[in-house]
Amino acid sequence: MSRVKLVVIGGVAAGMSAASRARRRNPELDITVLEKGRHVSYGACGLPYYLSGEVRDANDLVVYTPQYFREKRNIDIRLEHEATTIERGRKLIHTKAPGARTIEIPYDKLVVATGGTCSSKLPGADLPGVFTCSDLDGAIRLRTFLEEKRPSRGVVVGSGYIGLEMATAFSQRGIAVTLLTRSAELLNGFEPEISKRLEALLQAHGAVLKKNTSVTAISSSPVDGLCAHHAGGIEAAGVMLLATGITPNTALVESAGISVGATGAIVVDDRMQTNVNGIYAAGDCVEARHLVSGRPVYFPLGTTANKQGRVAGENAAGGNDRFDGIVGTLATKVFELELARTGLSLAEAHAAGFHADSVTIHTVSRAAYLGGRPLIATIVWDMESGRLLGFQAAGEEGAAKRIDAAAIALHARMRIQDMLHLDLCYAPPFATVWEALLLAAGQAVKKSRRR
Amino acid sequence: MSRVKLVVIGGVAAGMSAASRARRRNPELDITVLEKGRHVSYGACGLPYYLSGEVRDANDLVVYTPQYFREKRNIDIRLEHEATTIERGRKLIHTKAPGARTIEIPYDKLVVATGGTCSSKLPGADLPGVFTCSDLDGAIRLRTFLEEKRPSRGVVVGSGYIGLEMATAFSQRGIAVTLLTRSAELLNGFEPEISKRLEALLQAHGAVLKKNTSVTAISSSPVDGLCAHHAGGIEAAGVMLLATGITPNTALVESAGISVGATGAIVVDDRMQTNVNGIYAAGDCVEARHLVSGRPVYFPLGTTANKQGRVAGENAAGGNDRFDGIVGTLATKVFELELARTGLSLAEAHAAGFHADSVTIHTVSRAAYLGGRPLIATIVWDMESGRLLGFQAAGEEGAAKRIDAAAIALHARMRIQDMLHLDLCYAPPFATVWEALLLAAGQAVKKSRRR
Repeated sequence: MSRVKLVVIGGVAAGMSAASRARRRNPELDITVLEKGRHVSYGACGLPYYLSGEVRDANDLVVYTPQYFREKRNIDIRLEHEATTIERGRKLIHTKAPGARTIEIPYDKLVVATGGTCSSKLPGADLPGVFTCSDLDGAIRLRTFLEEKRPSRGVVVGSGYIGLEMATAFSQRGIAVTLLTRSAELLNGFEPEISKRLEALLQAHGAVLKKNTSVTAISSSPVDGLCAHHAGGIEAAGVMLLATGITPNTALVESAGISVGATGAIVVDDRMQTNVNGIYAAGDCVEARHLVSGRPVYFPLGTTANKQGRVAGENAAGGNDRFDGIVGTLATKVFELELARTGLSLAEAHAAGFHADSVTIHTVSRAAYLGGRPLIATIVWDMESGRLLGFQAAGEEGAAKRIDAAAIALHARMRIQDMLHLDLCYAPPFATVWEALLLAAGQAVKKSRRR
Repeated sequence: MSRVKLVVIGGVAAGMSAASRARRRNPELDITVLEKGRHVSYGACGLPYYLSGEVRDANDLVVYTPQYFREKRNIDIRLEHEATTIERGRKLIHTKAPGARTIEIPYDKLVVATGGTCSSKLPGADLPGVFTCSDLDGAIRLRTFLEEKRPSRGVVVGSGYIGLEMATAFSQRGIAVTLLTRSAELLNGFEPEISKRLEALLQAHGAVLKKNTSVTAISSSPVDGLCAHHAGGIEAAGVMLLATGITPNTALVESAGISVGATGAIVVDDRMQTNVNGIYAAGDCVEARHLVSGRPVYFPLGTTANKQGRVAGENAAGGNDRFDGIVGTLATKVFELELARTGLSLAEAHAAGFHADSVTIHTVSRAAYLGGRPLIATIVWDMESGRLLGFQAAGEEGAAKRIDAAAIALHARMRIQDMLHLDLCYAPPFATVWEALLLAAGQAVKKSRRR
């Protein structure tokens, strides 16, 4: 009797988590991972730090090598193998292999972890010197370009966390950065006060910021090499990075009749199974349930991909694990500023139908007499029930990890009136007597009573 | 008609929080604060940093001055006024005032915030050069002594967080420190692995550590000035600090028939009222309900004192606020090591009747490729229900504030099996993909299944 064949399409966070978990669950499975690139199991969230030079060697981002998976985990890793068609009838994956060969790989169970792409359809996006940053191969090409061409000016298109982290990386390499964004505020999903703090920071670091403008094309230029044409004018630069958002890679599954939701990403149940029995999906190609709004969202992040991958792998190998959803937690660092959020912003809360309100507080990261740094935080709550809906923070110290406490309060569906006396830790080197979350909850309760 | 008189006994964290909250609640109250020392409203948790010299001026620890309370909040602050008797029949506080006068202060409502004392009945505890560290006046005397006498050697008796913070402060002043403790492990209530990490740290900083030994007396010595006599020998030093634990100051209330619990501290209900109607108590003189064990505990900390003080003040002024209890959260810094805990240790969980187990994990504070520092964490859970009972962490970076997430999970009575996929924030400069709490919960679930 032949062994059950599990095929995993995609070998980064979700895919390798799935393969590893499936192996742990079932030593008898025949596991194959198809990865279209030349690397597996790397920290994609570390790419900006590789580009800035803080991470010297691309291999430092690699958690486990293909050899490790082959030898220690008995997982057949196929690099530069791109799945082109899922043939459900015969349970085959048509795959482009190196040397322009096409091979057929049979499966019994399938995990789709095709990820997302920062691709752009902008005219001129394919010119030399124009990059997106979605995988390690692309990052290596970009860093090689930066080291060889040494551009003095760079344009980043997009003001999400990837665009901002890349602008930081460019600046740390001594490249003068212009950031173009069609948004009115940086870091969509963050509250206006926090966005403003971020703008001041970018300006303090000499970045040029042009908001409310859409890039329409990129052309080559005799002077700097490239020109970005946008509503507000033309920016010339030697390198351009397009970070206008991640789109889930779903072409492969859509042609196989696997459902994609209104978010554009693959629909899965809480076992990470698609609408097709035996076909699972995880990571940047799937949507997740937002546990605050109750709605499906596309919120691709490495940490979620790892969790979903594990659940998909466990279940593909015969287990019964569940992934309930996310609360929308995200952290980023832009220059020295830590920014983090969890739950819904006020605008998102309104859009989700909550009768929401918010308060922003200003505090410090630790006792002022021990050099506490400013910390801004915004709390969002539902005025009818008092339920916590979101929390955001920004500061040069301790802002990011403070978000976790609020994230757990969201998972627990806490109400602001129950949060006033939470027993959070205090010692002068780390905190103030009234922790930011408690101060914010206190202000929220006070504002609620005034109504 | 005369105004209602609120008297608050004690003017540090709980007392001034109570007075301030009462004033906010009721602008008409007649509020008097009796403080036996010469300062009010200071950060007692900052005293070790004043002693080390990191905080230059004692006034930097003062949050608000007596003048501020008098002028801006219309609160009558009486410094160097020590309440000696509560005469319940006539509703009078007999008070020792400066100049050896005794005065009677009438009250309608009373908040007792007499705090705790690090006092010691050790023979020789009153010798010059022997100090405890319970208030700002004492800290000023100690620092003056250190600056004038410049002792080269110091003995700290006690290995709780105060003893350890003081040992750090001595060492930072260039004083060679010997730590004497009757405990087998440092930082009672922390898990053995974390205690061991702390021991290695102290030794690396040149501190001499003598455990399992009781100090029986202190005598004066012609050479260094002082000798500490203990089971294991004699230690000579120029300065000695006794930090053998805080005891609640209850003599005043006990003589007035106010109930004290088995913990030795004042019993209060969730409105912070004592067994006597109209008499409230808060801070280091009261016990609190531990929300994990459900039992009353004496766990005196500044952050709890502030919360309890607010509730006592609100209610003494006619309001109806509640303080449910604590989950046992505590953070401290010893040299460069952050240590924090919340909930019950394994030993405490067993003592509280839980069928508990624990797991210790070793991880890092942020992505290894960005210089993540080692982080140890221990999780404690109930084997029958899976309920989280405690979490502890130690590390040179990010250990303390990580505890807050676990503290909220304790408030929410989460189970380890519900904690595997909590949406905690990840970005390489602050965290690893699998946050310590998630890793620990994962190991706990795995260990539970193996049984």
